[in-house]
Amino acid sequence: MKFTANITVMPLKELLDPQGKAVTESLHKLGLSHLENVRVGKHITLQVTAATEAEAKTKTEEACKKLLVNAVMESFEYTLTEN
Amino acid sequence: MKFTANITVMPLKELLDPQGKAVTESLHKLGLSHLENVRVGKHITLQVTAATEAEAKTKTEEACKKLLVNAVMESFEYTLTEN
Repeated sequence: MKFTANITVMPLKELLDPQGKAVTESLHKLGLSHLENVRVGKHITLQVTAATEAEAKTKTEEACKKLLVNAVMESFEYTLTEN
Repeated sequence: MKFTANITVMPLKELLDPQGKAVTESLHKLGLSHLENVRVGKHITLQVTAATEAEAKTKTEEACKKLLVNAVMESFEYTLTEN
């Protein structure tokens, strides 16, 4: 079975997000007030080949923990859809 | 009214994604085979203050088109939820 994983990686809420702060200020300079609290993270999609959905979940989480996510600074969530 | 916008910005499907390709190779080197076609984009959250949901949509799209998204290389989608 083939699955598509949609993974969202965001900076932890407790931490400052300097990139998001810079984007907020840029939006204000462009006249887009009323936009606040910008936070910038990553969105990753990938294809997983696995026998079951449970196995696909395990593989996706392993990829996040080993490479895609820095758990000290980031949290992640994901969805799996069968192709 | 206050809304939270969740914006996903991804490289266009027609384009190569060198960062995604590098991540795919790194995953394979870590023993995570069966993971393919990694594509890496951005996930942005922000707070919108607007009188109506329609106005919040307009502001979010304006932010994407003016600053957050490079339409030559990227596509975006978003959801709005009232706080």
